[in-house]
Amino acid sequence: MRISELSTQTGMTVPTIKYYLREGLLPEGERSSPTQATYGDKHVERLRVIRALLDAGVSIAETRRVLTALDEPPEHSYDLLGTAHAAITPPLDVALDLNEAERIVSALGWKPGTCDLAVLNEVARAVEGLERAGFVVPDAVMREYLASMRRIADAEIAGVPTESPEAAVRYVVLGSVLVEPLLLALRRVAQQVSSWERFGSEG
Amino acid sequence: MRISELSTQTGMTVPTIKYYLREGLLPEGERSSPTQATYGDKHVERLRVIRALLDAGVSIAETRRVLTALDEPPEHSYDLLGTAHAAITPPLDVALDLNEAERIVSALGWKPGTCDLAVLNEVARAVEGLERAGFVVPDAVMREYLASMRRIADAEIAGVPTESPEAAVRYVVLGSVLVEPLLLALRRVAQQVSSWERFGSEG
Repeated sequence: MRISELSTQTGMTVPTIKYYLREGLLPEGERSSPTQATYGDKHVERLRVIRALLDAGVSIAETRRVLTALDEPPEHSYDLLGTAHAAITPPLDVALDLNEAERIVSALGWKPGTCDLAVLNEVARAVEGLERAGFVVPDAVMREYLASMRRIADAEIAGVPTESPEAAVRYVVLGSVLVEPLLLALRRVAQQVSSWERFGSEG
Repeated sequence: MRISELSTQTGMTVPTIKYYLREGLLPEGERSSPTQATYGDKHVERLRVIRALLDAGVSIAETRRVLTALDEPPEHSYDLLGTAHAAITPPLDVALDLNEAERIVSALGWKPGTCDLAVLNEVARAVEGLERAGFVVPDAVMREYLASMRRIADAEIAGVPTESPEAAVRYVVLGSVLVEPLLLALRRVAQQVSSWERFGSEG
């Protein structure tokens, strides 16, 4: 199909599609003449993924890295998550102290070598943000965070499809990124329901 | 203290502090002359909170709303979360279909009236993002998301300090916003540990 049909089918404007082409997010179509290219179903599919990532707040640069991870699956299954996470994790900040982060995540079953430094670094960054604001997570709440995240991860990893590397990569990469807004929104709903149950009768 | 001492004590530059003053994030100091103002410990404390929120990816406009919520606690305890969430939740998108979101969150104990529409709307937006990308959360995984978020929220709400409204507001507002990066980072570590346990032996 031509770019105009691609636009009709996806609901995205031609300038937007051309922008994604220029940014290297969408692969070029097949040249049918010096000024025209034809596009296929894989372009429709790719545009959907691009839109979902950008709508989820993923930057253009991160989206490019996620798409590269989708196109070039790593050799080993256990590298999948590292690749997905690397695509959406800011670069290492060597100034951060990882000791406190290591202490916290040891409750997740973490041991040296079982996760990327970049992800551990994200924990350290989050902990530092809380400390800087003078916010202390009560021990009982932190224990629930750790236990819940471990259960969630176990369920997610048990659900990784094994029929093809492509399906596994897609599940892991998109599941990591796109599920984040859902989890945060569910937490807020649960907080309101729980708060209503505890304090609602005071109203 | 003068603005230069405020800068020394917080490690923020004078232009940055002046920017926060102009943006209305930091209250004006007490005028000691037409060209000078003096600042106190509450300015130091406020600057720490501002920095933590901005570092957590909260926008200037959202930070202003969060700080307003900190300064003007709502009358009823159960309104705290609504206020905190309203400060960090994008405006309603009336085009979204809330039915699917309502169906999902009913498992959290949600009933009509127990949470703000804006928060429910966030769930609908997240679900739509997943659908648009063609990503299906397996049923068993979704059940774990719901059960875990309910347990997390119960632990968080049980931990709301009751010694003063200020302490409660601070806990709820900052806890909602600043804990989000921690939860997402813990999930990634847990995913890597869990993946390593399931697939690590293949390497």
